[in-house]
Amino acid sequence: MRINGKEKQSLWFENNILHFIDQRKLPEEINIFSASTVQQVCYAITDMVVRGAPAIGAAAAYGMAIGKNDMSRTAELLKKTRPTAFDLFYAVDYMLNCKKNGDDINDVAHHYVKDMIQRCKQIGEHGQRIIKDDIRVLTHCNAGALATVDYGTALAPLRAAHRNGKKIFVFADETRPRLQGLLTSWELSQEGIPHAVIADNAAGFYMKNNEIDIVITGADRIAKNGDFANKIGTYEKAVLAKENNIPFYVAAPISTFDPLLKTGDDIIIEHRSEDELKYYKHAQIMTKQTPVKNPAFDVTPVKYVTGFITEEGIKKA
Amino acid sequence: MRINGKEKQSLWFENNILHFIDQRKLPEEINIFSASTVQQVCYAITDMVVRGAPAIGAAAAYGMAIGKNDMSRTAELLKKTRPTAFDLFYAVDYMLNCKKNGDDINDVAHHYVKDMIQRCKQIGEHGQRIIKDDIRVLTHCNAGALATVDYGTALAPLRAAHRNGKKIFVFADETRPRLQGLLTSWELSQEGIPHAVIADNAAGFYMKNNEIDIVITGADRIAKNGDFANKIGTYEKAVLAKENNIPFYVAAPISTFDPLLKTGDDIIIEHRSEDELKYYKHAQIMTKQTPVKNPAFDVTPVKYVTGFITEEGIKKA
Repeated sequence: MRINGKEKQSLWFENNILHFIDQRKLPEEINIFSASTVQQVCYAITDMVVRGAPAIGAAAAYGMAIGKNDMSRTAELLKKTRPTAFDLFYAVDYMLNCKKNGDDINDVAHHYVKDMIQRCKQIGEHGQRIIKDDIRVLTHCNAGALATVDYGTALAPLRAAHRNGKKIFVFADETRPRLQGLLTSWELSQEGIPHAVIADNAAGFYMKNNEIDIVITGADRIAKNGDFANKIGTYEKAVLAKENNIPFYVAAPISTFDPLLKTGDDIIIEHRSEDELKYYKHAQIMTKQTPVKNPAFDVTPVKYVTGFITEEGIKKA
Repeated sequence: MRINGKEKQSLWFENNILHFIDQRKLPEEINIFSASTVQQVCYAITDMVVRGAPAIGAAAAYGMAIGKNDMSRTAELLKKTRPTAFDLFYAVDYMLNCKKNGDDINDVAHHYVKDMIQRCKQIGEHGQRIIKDDIRVLTHCNAGALATVDYGTALAPLRAAHRNGKKIFVFADETRPRLQGLLTSWELSQEGIPHAVIADNAAGFYMKNNEIDIVITGADRIAKNGDFANKIGTYEKAVLAKENNIPFYVAAPISTFDPLLKTGDDIIIEHRSEDELKYYKHAQIMTKQTPVKNPAFDVTPVKYVTGFITEEGIKKA
C-alpha cells in the first residue's frame, strides 16, 4: 500500500520484533507500535492496534515466532485474544503444524505472511475483472491493506482497477462504532481513489437512488455453506443490496474459510466494550450511564452473496 | 414528558418569547434557548435547537405569532429554514389562514400547539394497543416528546404502554450522524423505560436474532400513497424489518401527511453540513480533509409499512 507515496506494509517483523502501524491512531497520526513479547502481540490484537482477519492472522503467525520457546502456551494465549476472525486460528494452527516438521519458525512465519500478501494481490487481480469503468462501489468497515498487511481483500480489486486506469468512486460506510471507514478513507486517499465517507444509515439511501453499482466487503469467517461473519452492519448492507438488485461480493483469502463450520449459525460473535460507542478516541460521545449493547460482528446468510472473490478466482455463492 | 420527575414540555411560549429546551446540549445539559424575534426562531429550527417534524411545526406556529406584524414575510423566512418536514409548512399555512379570519394570533398558535399535544396523546392511546406485554421495540432517531412538544409520536405508544404497566424493552438506534438516539435514551431514562442504545449497524443483527418484535418510527412527511420521509437510515430499518417479518409502524399526526404529494419520489431531501459527521459537539471525529456526504433524510416506500398510528387510530398501509 502507498503511504505518502512510498510502498509500505501495515506490519513487519525484524530482529524478532513485530512492528505495527498503530490503527488506533490513524488517520490522525502514523505511529508505530512494537511488540517483542507474546503478551504485547496479544495486547495489539485485543486492543485493535491491528485488526482485520488476515492481518490478525499475520500478527498471530509472528506472535508464534516470538513465542517459539513455548509454542503450545503461545498458541493458547493468542487464540484467546478475539473469537470471531478465523484467520487467527488458521495461522496459529499453521505454525503449530510447521513446528512438527522442524522448520525454522521465523522462516515459516515470514512464508505465511508473504504468501498471504500474494493471495491478496491475486484477489485484486481476479476481482478487478468485475470492476467496470465508471463504477460506484460501496464498502463497509476496512478490508484494505491495513486489514491484511498489503493490498487488502475488498479494497484489492479497487486498488488494481484504479492502477489499471479504471474510473471508480467508492462510498465508504463510516462503520460505527469504531469508524474503520476512516481507515478505508485514509487508504483510498493515499491511493488517489475518489470516495466519500457516509453514515452507515445512508448506504440504503444511495442504493435506492441507483448511485451504487456493486457492494464488496471482507469477511472474518466463512462457513462451509457460504454464510459469513463480518463487521457489524454487513448483514444490513447485504439485505439492502439484494432488495435493490445490487451484486454483493465477499473478498477473502482461503484462510478465512472455516472447513469445520457447517453454517453461520455456529459462529461465535464477539461483544465488545460499551466504551466503543461511548468514546471516540479521547472524545466522550455518550454519558457513562447510557445503557449500550455492542455486538462487533454479524452473520450474513449466503443467500445474500453474489460471489466470493478469492485468490483462486471468483466463486459463485 | 417527565424531566427529573416533573411534567414538562420541550418548548413553551410566554410573554411573546418562545423558550426551547436546547436539544443541541442534551443529554449532558438542560439549557433553555429563548427566541423573541423571527430570526431567532429561524435559527433555532435551522441549527436544530428544536427538531422533529411536529416540534418544528409548533415552533413555526409561535414564530408566526412573534412575527405577526408582517406575517407574509415571517412565513417566507420560516419556510426557508428546512425543506423536508411537512409540519413546518402545515403550521405556517395554518397560521396564515387563521389570520384571514381575524383571530388573535397568539391564541391561534397556542391552540395549534395544544391541539398537537392532544393528538400525540391520542397517538399514544391508539398505539399502545399494539404494544403487547413483554415486547421488544426498535426505534430510530428521536420521535419523542422532544420532537413533538409532549408525549412524542413513535414514543407516545411506548410511554402509554409503560404507564399502563406493560413490560417493554426498547432498542434505540444511535442514529448517526447527529445521534438523536441519545435524546431517545434520555427520554426513556426519565420515564424509567428499560432500553439500550445500539449502533445503527446493529439493528439488523438484533432483528435477525429474533430480539425485536416491532419497529416504530416517526415521519417527517408522508405522501398520499403512504411513502414517507424520515431520518436517514429509516429506509434501511424498514427493509430489514420486512425481510425479518417484523411489523413496521409509522407514528405521526395528520399534520405530517402532505395532501398534495402523490408519492415519496417528490419529497425534497435535505443534505446537511459535512461537519455533522466530522464533529460530535466539540469533539472532532474526522479530519477536515475527509470527503463526506450527508443526506439527512430518506424515503421509505409504503410497501415496507405495516400501518400508520395517527390520532384518528391505526390505519393499515
